Amino acid sequence: MSLLVTGSIGIDTVEAPAGKVENVLGGSSIYFAYAASFFSPVRLVGVVGDDCPPDFLAPLRANPKIDLAGLEVRPGSKTFRWHGRYHADVNDRDTVGVELNVLAERGPAIPEQFRDSRYVFLANTHPALQMQLLDQLKAPALVVADTMDLWINSQRDALLTLLRRLDGLVLNDSEAKLLTGEPNVVAAGMKVASIVKKFVVVKKGEHGSLLFTEGKVSAMPSYPTCNVIDPTGAGDSFAGAMMGHIAAVGKFDAATLRRAAAYGSVTASIELEDFSLNKLVRTSRGEIDQRMKQFEELTAF
Amino acid sequence: MSLLVTGSIGIDTVEAPAGKVENVLGGSSIYFAYAASFFSPVRLVGVVGDDCPPDFLAPLRANPKIDLAGLEVRPGSKTFRWHGRYHADVNDRDTVGVELNVLAERGPAIPEQFRDSRYVFLANTHPALQMQLLDQLKAPALVVADTMDLWINSQRDALLTLLRRLDGLVLNDSEAKLLTGEPNVVAAGMKVASIVKKFVVVKKGEHGSLLFTEGKVSAMPSYPTCNVIDPTGAGDSFAGAMMGHIAAVGKFDAATLRRAAAYGSVTASIELEDFSLNKLVRTSRGEIDQRMKQFEELTAF
Repeated sequence: MSLLVTGSIGIDTVEAPAGKVENVLGGSSIYFAYAASFFSPVRLVGVVGDDCPPDFLAPLRANPKIDLAGLEVRPGSKTFRWHGRYHADVNDRDTVGVELNVLAERGPAIPEQFRDSRYVFLANTHPALQMQLLDQLKAPALVVADTMDLWINSQRDALLTLLRRLDGLVLNDSEAKLLTGEPNVVAAGMKVASIVKKFVVVKKGEHGSLLFTEGKVSAMPSYPTCNVIDPTGAGDSFAGAMMGHIAAVGKFDAATLRRAAAYGSVTASIELEDFSLNKLVRTSRGEIDQRMKQFEELTAF
Repeated sequence: MSLLVTGSIGIDTVEAPAGKVENVLGGSSIYFAYAASFFSPVRLVGVVGDDCPPDFLAPLRANPKIDLAGLEVRPGSKTFRWHGRYHADVNDRDTVGVELNVLAERGPAIPEQFRDSRYVFLANTHPALQMQLLDQLKAPALVVADTMDLWINSQRDALLTLLRRLDGLVLNDSEAKLLTGEPNVVAAGMKVASIVKKFVVVKKGEHGSLLFTEGKVSAMPSYPTCNVIDPTGAGDSFAGAMMGHIAAVGKFDAATLRRAAAYGSVTASIELEDFSLNKLVRTSRGEIDQRMKQFEELTAF
């Protein structure tokens, strides 16, 4: 089934204990789309400036499962840039610099041929913009969004209006607590789940995720790995694989959502083994399925 | 099979968002023994001072599965006391006061009729004392210990000597990182596992646990709950249920250890729903099995 993602495209600089990369491909929609493409065709909507090098999106152009008809190159604008620095414990990072550039302007339009998309992921951006994107869709079957602390703090009303129209929300544990004022992450997730229509996934990074749906809470560990080079994009890869699996099977009951989250965990654990998309472009669906099988065996009790 | 625990018995004062209790029963061996008793008979070795009220251990005396023949009441000594205060987020706590008292004296002796114990848990104390206790056992099949940052920092050599004689070690994620200098918890756990004979369980509190055995790493979430009144003793209850299950089935292969850790998670999630042993004494094995079934259903993918 047709899967659409809207989100950022960025020129990233990343410093980590394993090394440093400058001006590499990043952004939520990039990681999401590449991860989703292992499971389902995916349509990307995003905008860059005319400073974006022509071959910058080559890994996506080379992937026949990713449709870039929604990519806008905006003349006179500059591409979003992000510079992050990870600590010795790569679960902690500092943002060294961020230039919103084109992300601070009007959002991209969803092309006519994408407006019939049935599965939709609105990656993190201003909730009013997420709403505008949602309004351009004809009859989505499942609309899921991501958000962040910035919008929870500064755009709470717009965010709450958006949440009531969503089928699903993906957010971090600290964001769930911030949004609800609940110090317990399970209570926080339950409260958010009472606002959206179907489900909430609370991501806890290396500690896994919690799924709230059908009045129940499911817990899942992360696929355990010690080969963490660069966690940038792990959360977006999680969401991409999750939505890709959902779109592929065309269901979103509790059991399907758990399996989707497991694929998310496994795909994210591969993504973070190198900078940018470097590991994902070297990965096959067979390798994902192999790690998924290990994950099943090593979590069963 | 015979299960023995050696560890602390304490007079606890606990402040938490849900309330405050003063001078209640606590200590690692207490929580361990009660949790283990749902699965297996358990022998307790510990020492209190003569300030300990006569009915203080009444919940354990009322439990026919717990053998208190190894309880020493030492004349002229005072019982260990601990006073903790939990934050609004009960995953954080401060130690308000601690009086080692009898724990700073010589350790208890293991009674002759306990020396044939096959399954042994040496709860956290000075590693040299854990070694003395171990030396009193005739032919244990599985010896597992707990430790803490204090000994890692101050008694590293004694601790490493002990570790080499252990079949298993249970410790927190921060302790595994401290012991090995590895910032990644998976790498840290693997390094500790290379020192002990069979397995390491790294406890991550609300985030679950990691099991390192047979060259592999298994991840498990905690049973998700929002009803957290007092986490004191949750780690010891985890270890108690885990060892109780192992002793009951008489095996410790990887699959058994995973199931044992799952029982640990479930039993700990019940224990923390009230202060001291208050919730465990109201719990039946049937209720543990019911929650275990939910845990299996809600983690399967």
